Amino acid sequence: MMNTRTILAGASAMAMLAVPAHADEGMWTFDAFPAAKMQAKYGWAPDAAWLKHVQNSAVRLTGGCSASFVSGEGLILTNHHCVRECAQDLSDASHDYIANGFVADDRTAERKCPGQQAEVVTSITDVTPVVQAAEKGLSGSALVKAIDAATAKIEKDNCPDTVTTRCQVVTLFGGAQYKLYKYHKYSDVRLVWAPSGQAAAFGGDPDNFNYPRYGLDAAFLRAYVDGKPAVTPQHLKWDARGPQDGEITMVAGNPGSTDRLYTKAQRIFARDDLYPFYLTLLSEYRGRLISKMEDDPQRERTGTDALFGTENSFKALSGYVGSLRDPKFAAKLNKAQEQLRAKVAADPTLAKKVGDPWSQIADAENSARDLYQQYMLLEPLAGFQSTLYGYARTIVRAAEERQKPDADRLPGYNDAALPLMEKRLMDSKPVYPWLEKMDIEFWLTKVREYMTADSPVTKAMLGKQSPEQIADALVNGTKLADPAYRKKLFEGGLAAVKASDDPMIRYVLAHDQAARDIRQDYIAKVVGPIAAAEPKLADARFGVYGDTLYPDATFTLRLSYGTVKGWDEKGKPVPFETYYGGMFDRATGNPPFNLPKAFIAHKADIDMKTPLDFVTTNDIIGGNSGSPVIAKDGSVIGAAFDGNIHMLGGNFGYDPVLNRTVVVSTAAVQEALEHIYPAPRLLKELNGK
Amino acid sequence: MMNTRTILAGASAMAMLAVPAHADEGMWTFDAFPAAKMQAKYGWAPDAAWLKHVQNSAVRLTGGCSASFVSGEGLILTNHHCVRECAQDLSDASHDYIANGFVADDRTAERKCPGQQAEVVTSITDVTPVVQAAEKGLSGSALVKAIDAATAKIEKDNCPDTVTTRCQVVTLFGGAQYKLYKYHKYSDVRLVWAPSGQAAAFGGDPDNFNYPRYGLDAAFLRAYVDGKPAVTPQHLKWDARGPQDGEITMVAGNPGSTDRLYTKAQRIFARDDLYPFYLTLLSEYRGRLISKMEDDPQRERTGTDALFGTENSFKALSGYVGSLRDPKFAAKLNKAQEQLRAKVAADPTLAKKVGDPWSQIADAENSARDLYQQYMLLEPLAGFQSTLYGYARTIVRAAEERQKPDADRLPGYNDAALPLMEKRLMDSKPVYPWLEKMDIEFWLTKVREYMTADSPVTKAMLGKQSPEQIADALVNGTKLADPAYRKKLFEGGLAAVKASDDPMIRYVLAHDQAARDIRQDYIAKVVGPIAAAEPKLADARFGVYGDTLYPDATFTLRLSYGTVKGWDEKGKPVPFETYYGGMFDRATGNPPFNLPKAFIAHKADIDMKTPLDFVTTNDIIGGNSGSPVIAKDGSVIGAAFDGNIHMLGGNFGYDPVLNRTVVVSTAAVQEALEHIYPAPRLLKELNGK
Repeated sequence: MMNTRTILAGASAMAMLAVPAHADEGMWTFDAFPAAKMQAKYGWAPDAAWLKHVQNSAVRLTGGCSASFVSGEGLILTNHHCVRECAQDLSDASHDYIANGFVADDRTAERKCPGQQAEVVTSITDVTPVVQAAEKGLSGSALVKAIDAATAKIEKDNCPDTVTTRCQVVTLFGGAQYKLYKYHKYSDVRLVWAPSGQAAAFGGDPDNFNYPRYGLDAAFLRAYVDGKPAVTPQHLKWDARGPQDGEITMVAGNPGSTDRLYTKAQRIFARDDLYPFYLTLLSEYRGRLISKMEDDPQRERTGTDALFGTENSFKALSGYVGSLRDPKFAAKLNKAQEQLRAKVAADPTLAKKVGDPWSQIADAENSARDLYQQYMLLEPLAGFQSTLYGYARTIVRAAEERQKPDADRLPGYNDAALPLMEKRLMDSKPVYPWLEKMDIEFWLTKVREYMTADSPVTKAMLGKQSPEQIADALVNGTKLADPAYRKKLFEGGLAAVKASDDPMIRYVLAHDQAARDIRQDYIAKVVGPIAAAEPKLADARFGVYGDTLYPDATFTLRLSYGTVKGWDEKGKPVPFETYYGGMFDRATGNPPFNLPKAFIAHKADIDMKTPLDFVTTNDIIGGNSGSPVIAKDGSVIGAAFDGNIHMLGGNFGYDPVLNRTVVVSTAAVQEALEHIYPAPRLLKELNGK
Repeated sequence: MMNTRTILAGASAMAMLAVPAHADEGMWTFDAFPAAKMQAKYGWAPDAAWLKHVQNSAVRLTGGCSASFVSGEGLILTNHHCVRECAQDLSDASHDYIANGFVADDRTAERKCPGQQAEVVTSITDVTPVVQAAEKGLSGSALVKAIDAATAKIEKDNCPDTVTTRCQVVTLFGGAQYKLYKYHKYSDVRLVWAPSGQAAAFGGDPDNFNYPRYGLDAAFLRAYVDGKPAVTPQHLKWDARGPQDGEITMVAGNPGSTDRLYTKAQRIFARDDLYPFYLTLLSEYRGRLISKMEDDPQRERTGTDALFGTENSFKALSGYVGSLRDPKFAAKLNKAQEQLRAKVAADPTLAKKVGDPWSQIADAENSARDLYQQYMLLEPLAGFQSTLYGYARTIVRAAEERQKPDADRLPGYNDAALPLMEKRLMDSKPVYPWLEKMDIEFWLTKVREYMTADSPVTKAMLGKQSPEQIADALVNGTKLADPAYRKKLFEGGLAAVKASDDPMIRYVLAHDQAARDIRQDYIAKVVGPIAAAEPKLADARFGVYGDTLYPDATFTLRLSYGTVKGWDEKGKPVPFETYYGGMFDRATGNPPFNLPKAFIAHKADIDMKTPLDFVTTNDIIGGNSGSPVIAKDGSVIGAAFDGNIHMLGGNFGYDPVLNRTVVVSTAAVQEALEHIYPAPRLLKELNGK
């Protein structure tokens, strides 16, 4: 599963420049799609109208997924795992929508997903000169601050209407380009239809850790405006015909991040430090969660999304680090770097312009080695997934940052970012005290373990208490589960926050400076130097390879081309598609190979020859989850929901022989709408009859 | 903590040849101690009588620890963590000896430790020609089998008395030498005195993951013969005076294994494959265990030894892999290999003799990459610590192997190995069904995850059941917790085993062939080729460095020399000793920094200036736990119980600047015997008054 939410979001480096693309490689921006190249290879390529229509139909979900409009009334096709959190948030002790699925029989039964927002790109504008003028001559943290300030200003100035628009400046090619993406946004998104979680993730981790092949990983949402379904004349035509072997497939979606142009020093840091550190944390957390959920039905229900996300992140990171540890793969990437450096060295003018960004980055990674654990634990991983801790930190930081001029604030607290933050903060959603306590206890235990009991930060954060005691006191005492209290604090600003006696708020207030300090240190010694070196790397690549490059992924809209095609797994051919019948054959009766209730109940009605999942050569990564898979004629024939295990190496480089996208077919969805989780209303809306 | 039991025992490679020793480096065999070198550096070195006396006083504990006789009546000093399993085995719902400590007021209260055996080396004989004649001209699995057969025969022929003697052939320098170690054995070992576990491991993981500094990690056992205390005229004189900064310290003990002469290919395989794989398993297991134990006092009591062992292994492996990921450390080791190869290449005669063992080993590691996960899961990690599963496998394999001639059996099932196996199998000890189920469920989950649900082995082992169901059925149904049933099956041989309806026995019988197959494959493709290459590496090293080498550790008796000395941790000096007072200062009242009950009760009586722990430059590794730390005059002044975190890099190379052994002082033990866990009987025995 490939939403970005569960991936190491905070720790990924900024976007970097890619090598020349081979085979079906490339996550292309819509304003630079290599139509000529595709035409030459496949005898067909999308024209401008095709591209425009798909761009207008493609949806980004702020939870970290992709999607598409599939009707004129705001109906959105995405993956089940992209609505899983929503289904859990809407469930309670007597309604378990993950266990049983969710079918809204009429519009009034469609229910709002907390924190979810849908966005459609309306324009892309080059703002490179503005940002580059602001950063000129700067380095280190001053450089990073200048970029952030320029970005915040552009975003604010270009989207005065914060109700229906959102602006984001995207860094491409490591700062060689800055582009302003303007979105039309839908902040009321409702759940319409979802199968059971078991149908979406049949085979569970055992299959997911290799490749999922019997997943009905699809769901429908609907965008609403002023309480009515959004009017979306630009949408993809629904086609439930099933895939053809070898046919061309286009995937439009928002790949979250790739690191294809990491230097060797960055890959070694990721392989030996960052990824193993995070994988170790995730493994222990996974174990804690599994034991807590076992033999306790309420915890099993309320912990399922957390476990799903943890195992997904674990899988993704395992794949990333596995590819870096593969001697052949690593040698290939190292060789590409050597060749680039040799070509730069052979051109004195270019060599002078480029300098030695490789060594600058290696130096920055050496600094990172001493800092990253503290930085990770106190910044991106603070509270370790605790929703309540997240609320507290957002409220405290927003109160402090909003007192400053826009240009001086921490990223994420600028005026342009506030509307989505506020929505996420105010939307009502359930919290589960046992899970909140486990998260905070785990986090504080790891702070002590990695920063040591002797660190002044650990001493201040723990005092004479144990992690368990602090977690209990914070979760039992806080009122932050109440949206009204969050609203009151947020709107009351710094005065209200400082006056609050809420223990979670007070805890964050007491210890936030230590987190800000390590953040500042990390920016000065790691992020800043890398930000200064990356445009030099871009100079090197453009100088050597010219204008044939695509940028690393940035969770913005991209288009990839490919074909429906199986692969050989250790000498054994894997067919291009699976069928419902195969799922029934694979079922054992026990998790995670148990058939969902609805499948058993409707077995006689299901056409076992209906294609379920299929694989394509499209180049995708986490964030592409829910992306429409589009045929030449512009109709949607599936929703990408994962890759095989080789796809994860795609974080660093695309392998045309093995890398595959896994797609749930519209044929399978239609069959489910007809016979498994019946939804005649949607069938009519999708098929126009 | 550093017993070998918890370390990746089954996966460690065979012993390999070391580089020339620098500074205080070296785990020297008693028959090749570098007295002249030490004399030159320190102006003192042990003479033959000193060595003989210490060898006769030094004890190996078969649980994976070291120890020493400290009275003429069989009294043994070791670490608390070496008797922790025993203390847990002897506890029940109303007696918790880990929580409260154990003091035997008189001899009749001393209680037998299940499975524990004490051994003293009585002779060391060179048997190299015999083994080398047997292996001549062979390769692959035939080579491994020939070595095993020759070894088994020597062991059997030389120890006809299996009641009081044990023979073991040890491979040194990768097969350049084979030595027969003959031991006097004591198979009745009883617990005499132990403080609470919290006293032994004060500071818990947070300190253990850096360095433990306030651990009263000491305990006493006693060897019995025919129901009476063993007569041990050869023992170390007890001296509770406390350490002097800079004084010479000798450590006599059984370092478990080191990999100092790994080739670069072996280090990369360990860094990128074997260690991360096992660390990931341990992390999840750790998390599962922590959650299961939380809020359940019975599980907290009965799971404590498992958690302790897991965290210890986790720490050791983290340290090993951390050192391999350290760019400077790795570069140093790689450079040493390059220098050796260059010197070999510069000497045509030597080059011809040596050939290219480096490439042979690299090829073997490439094969290992495809096989090690299956091998680990089905062989050394089968059942993942489940005691009942371990019984079943031992019984099934012993029944099968004992039908074969001694030379054809699996290692560990030869006649020479049977007495200890039988003792371990027959000794009565408690098992905890919740923990047994967790172990087996976890293990089967990982078999499915790593070998995939599609592997024929997984399909056979799981069928249509879930890991939980199988674990429940096996643990609920087995009678193997009863020693009488184990005895009946063991003595009944293959007929009894095949006739048994015990579900655990039947499960092992049904799936053992798959494990044997992967084992055989791993030997043929990995172990065999490495065994063939290692003597060539020995030729290279002896050829270049001459006779100045010590062999890698093999859990046999070694002597290391050094001095009492602090170190600088990131610029901050760490003093050479700590005091009881510091433990009270560090206490927070909450685990793992809570004072044990007895410390609080007797606070007024404790002399806070008594030295507690101290550090030395001695070169040790896991297995050295409990080793006597001996002053020049032959008296014991402490028991080594751990190292600082830099000691773990010692698996691959010794760093004289940072590597330190951590020791609990006899002064601290004496203070505890007097005032904390009073034992006047022992004080009299130790001090002769």
